[in-house]
Amino acid sequence: MEVLATTDSPLDSLADHEALRESNWEARIIPTFRPDPVVDPEFEGFAENITALVELTGEDTSWAGYLSALRKTRIRFRALGCTATDHGHPTARTANLPPAEAAELFRRVLTGNADAQQQELFRAQMLTEMARMSLDDGLVMQIHPGSARNHNRKLYERYGRDVGADIPMPTNYVDALRPLLDQFGNERELTIILFTLDESTYSRELAPLAGHYPCLRLGPPWWFHDSPEGMMRFRERVTETAGFYNTVGFNDDTRAFLSIPGRHDAARRMDCAYLGKLVAEHRLEEEEALEVAKDLAYTLVKKAYRL
Amino acid sequence: MEVLATTDSPLDSLADHEALRESNWEARIIPTFRPDPVVDPEFEGFAENITALVELTGEDTSWAGYLSALRKTRIRFRALGCTATDHGHPTARTANLPPAEAAELFRRVLTGNADAQQQELFRAQMLTEMARMSLDDGLVMQIHPGSARNHNRKLYERYGRDVGADIPMPTNYVDALRPLLDQFGNERELTIILFTLDESTYSRELAPLAGHYPCLRLGPPWWFHDSPEGMMRFRERVTETAGFYNTVGFNDDTRAFLSIPGRHDAARRMDCAYLGKLVAEHRLEEEEALEVAKDLAYTLVKKAYRL
Amino acid sequence: MEVLATTDSPLDSLADHEALRESNWEARIIPTFRPDPVVDPEFEGFAENITALVELTGEDTSWAGYLSALRKTRIRFRALGCTATDHGHPTARTANLPPAEAAELFRRVLTGNADAQQQELFRAQMLTEMARMSLDDGLVMQIHPGSARNHNRKLYERYGRDVGADIPMPTNYVDALRPLLDQFGNERELTIILFTLDESTYSRELAPLAGHYPCLRLGPPWWFHDSPEGMMRFRERVTETAGFYNTVGFNDDTRAFLSIPGRHDAARRMDCAYLGKLVAEHRLEEEEALEVAKDLAYTLVKKAYRL
Repeated sequence: MEVLATTDSPLDSLADHEALRESNWEARIIPTFRPDPVVDPEFEGFAENITALVELTGEDTSWAGYLSALRKTRIRFRALGCTATDHGHPTARTANLPPAEAAELFRRVLTGNADAQQQELFRAQMLTEMARMSLDDGLVMQIHPGSARNHNRKLYERYGRDVGADIPMPTNYVDALRPLLDQFGNERELTIILFTLDESTYSRELAPLAGHYPCLRLGPPWWFHDSPEGMMRFRERVTETAGFYNTVGFNDDTRAFLSIPGRHDAARRMDCAYLGKLVAEHRLEEEEALEVAKDLAYTLVKKAYRL
Repeated sequence: MEVLATTDSPLDSLADHEALRESNWEARIIPTFRPDPVVDPEFEGFAENITALVELTGEDTSWAGYLSALRKTRIRFRALGCTATDHGHPTARTANLPPAEAAELFRRVLTGNADAQQQELFRAQMLTEMARMSLDDGLVMQIHPGSARNHNRKLYERYGRDVGADIPMPTNYVDALRPLLDQFGNERELTIILFTLDESTYSRELAPLAGHYPCLRLGPPWWFHDSPEGMMRFRERVTETAGFYNTVGFNDDTRAFLSIPGRHDAARRMDCAYLGKLVAEHRLEEEEALEVAKDLAYTLVKKAYRL
Repeated sequence: MEVLATTDSPLDSLADHEALRESNWEARIIPTFRPDPVVDPEFEGFAENITALVELTGEDTSWAGYLSALRKTRIRFRALGCTATDHGHPTARTANLPPAEAAELFRRVLTGNADAQQQELFRAQMLTEMARMSLDDGLVMQIHPGSARNHNRKLYERYGRDVGADIPMPTNYVDALRPLLDQFGNERELTIILFTLDESTYSRELAPLAGHYPCLRLGPPWWFHDSPEGMMRFRERVTETAGFYNTVGFNDDTRAFLSIPGRHDAARRMDCAYLGKLVAEHRLEEEEALEVAKDLAYTLVKKAYRL
C-alpha cells in the first residue's frame, strides 16, 4: 500500500497529519478536504462551523471572507499532502449564480433564514465554487451524491447521524451538473470524479458525460455496489461509451480498515474477469488487456488523484 | 403442492373457503385479505363497498367504525387460514397522519369530495393502518405497486377494468415508504414483502431497504419479470446487499392455474443456476449452495408467509 | 446492401433523390421524412421554415393549411420511395387536443408567443397528427426521444447545434405516449417504432407497451447503446416480454457511412450470440434459432419499414 487518504473537516487542525510527517514514518498518509460541515446548511452547527472557520483563517463572515477562508484552508491541506476534495451532497445539483446573488444567498443560509430549496441551491453554488478553486490549486474534486441519509428515524433519534441507515435515491446528473459544466466542463486542468448509487445512470448519463467532457472521470462502483456483480455491471455499462481511461481505478471509502486489501483484491479480480471476457470474445488483444489491467489496478488511480 | 392462497375482497363471504374446510379435503387452500375495494377511493363502488363492509361487521361509517370493521374482517379471514394481506396500489406511498386528519380525510373520500391527491393520500394512510393491524393480528403484508392499470383506453371502455393492459411505471420506494417505516420499520414482529415492476429499484432502493429494516423482505421477480432473465437479474442485483434470507422464495400471482408448476420449476432452476455460478466462481461452497437452494425453494416461503 | 435511407427536411427539394432515380443506378436510396424543422418550435428558424413550407405547397399559415402542407410534402416524399418518418423530440410526450385548441396553440408557437411548456405541448400534439397522417399514407413512424441536445454550452456557442455534445436523459413512455395510444394504439395498419437512450425503460415500459399495443415496435439499441454489451442487454431485457417479432431488426443512424457494415455485422453477431445462449440453455430449438436469426438480420427490418 503506497498511499492512504483520510477525509477531514476544514475545521480539523490536521495535527495527526503533522505528527505523521514529523515522525519520518515512510507511510504516505494524506488528508482529503471534505467541506460538508461548512458548505452544507443542513449540517449540524453549520453557522458555528463557519464562524470557527473564518476565525481560524483570519477572515470575516462576508461572502468574500468565507470564500477566502476556504481557499486558505485548502492551501493548508495541500501543504500536508492533500490532493483531493470530497463532497457528499444529497444531489449532484450545481449552480452558477451571479456573485451578488450568491452573497445574498450566503447571508440567508448563515442567518438560518433559508428554506430547503435555498439550502439546496447554496450547496449547488458551492460545488461550482469548489471547482473554481480546484482550477487554481489543483485539488481533484470527488462528488458522492444520491444517498438519503439517516433514513431510519428511530435510529437517528437515539444514536444521531451517520450510523448506517443510508439508502440510495434516484439521482440526476445530466441537468444537475449543467451549470458547473457550462462554466468549467472543457477545462483540461480540472478533474472531477463522479460517483453514483443509482446504477441506472451508468450507461444513461455518467458514461456519456465522462466520454464527452474533458474534466469528468468516473469513480469506481461505490458503497452498495463495490461487490463482484456490482463491479462487473459498472464495467459492462460504462466501458463502451466512456472507455477505460475515463475511469480512475478502484478506491474504497470505508472506516473498516481491515477490509481494504480484500476490497482492492476483489476489484482487481473483477476488472481482470471483465478483461478476460473481452479477450476470450476477441474484442481485445491479450497484450492490450495486460496493459489495461495494470492501469486499472495502479496507474489510473495515481494519475487521477495526482499522487 | 402444500398450500394454495386465493386473494379475496373483504366483502367476500368466503363461503367457498368454509365449504373447503368442512369437506375434510386435505388440500390447504387459504384466503388472502385484499382490501383494495374498501381502501382505494378510485375503486368502482368504493362508498357502497364501505357501507356493505360496516353493515356486515355491525359498525358505522365513522373513521373508528371503518377501522374496526377492517379489523373484524381480518379476524374472519384469519379464522379460515389467512396469513397475509395484499395491496395493489398505484404507488408505494405511505402516510402517517394524526388521527383527526385521517378521520377528516376518510370523510372526504367517503363522500366523494376528495381530489386525486387526497385519494392517493388516503391509500397511503391505509398502508400504515394495515401495518398497524398486522402488528396486532400477525398477518403478513404484501405491497404490489407500480402498475399503470387499464392503459388501453378502448379496451377499457369496451371490456372494463383488469383485462390485461397494465404497464409498469417508474416506482419510488425510498421516500414513499418512509412514513410507514418511521413508525414501524424496526418492528421484528412485522413482515412487509415488497414487490416491484421497476427493476431499476432492485439494487438502488429495495435491496438496501430490505438489508436495513427488520420488517422488510423482498418478494420474487413479479409479473413481467418472472422469467428466466428476469429471475437472474433479481438475484444478481439484490443478493450482494440484501442477502438470500431477506427474500421470500418464489410465489406467483396468476389466474393461470396450469402455469403454476412450470413457473415454480423455472424459479427453482434459475435460483440454482445463480447458486451454481457462485459455486463455480468460488464465491460460495457447494454445501452452502445446497442448503440455500432448499431454503429458496421451500423454507423461506413457509417462514415468510407464516405457513 | 439493398437499401439506404437518408433523413431529410420537409423543405428539402429532394433533387438529389430525383437525380438518383433518373440515373438508373440500381442502388435503392430513399428519403425519410424528418419534420423537426417545421414541427419543433425551438428549432432555429421555425416560423420561417413554416412560411417556406406553406409557400412550397400552395397553402397558408392557418392550422388547416399547415397540416395540409405537411400531408402534401409527405406525398412528395413517398413518390421518391420514402417509407418512414423520423421524430427527434426531447421527450416522447404526445397530446390529443381538440382541433380548436390545437389551432390556437399553433398560432401561438408560430407568432413566437409560446412558453417552453406550450412548445413542448405543440411537439406532443404533432406526434399525434403525424400518427393520424401515417394511418392515411402508410409511412412508418420512428420516435427517437430522450437526448439533451447541445449539452456543452461553449461548444454550442462556438460551433452551433448538433456537433456531438448530446447526453441521454431519463425518459418516460408509459404516460407520455398515452394520448396518442388512446387514439391510435390498437390500429393494426399503423407502425410506430420506439427508440430509447434510457435502458431502464427496456423491461419496465417499452417491452410491456410493445407487447400490448398492435401499432408499437421496438427499434434496435440506439446510439450510445449500439455496442456489443448494449445489444445483449437489449435482447435480454425485452425478449421475454415483447418477443422477437415486435422488434425491427438492426438499423443504425449515422453520418459515418464507412461504419455501417461493421455495425450491422456486430448486431448480427450479438443477436446470434443471444440466440446461441438460448439454444445452449435449451430455451430455444436450434432450428428455431436459425429462423429467428435470419428474421432479425433481414426479414423483420424489411417488413417493419415496408421496404
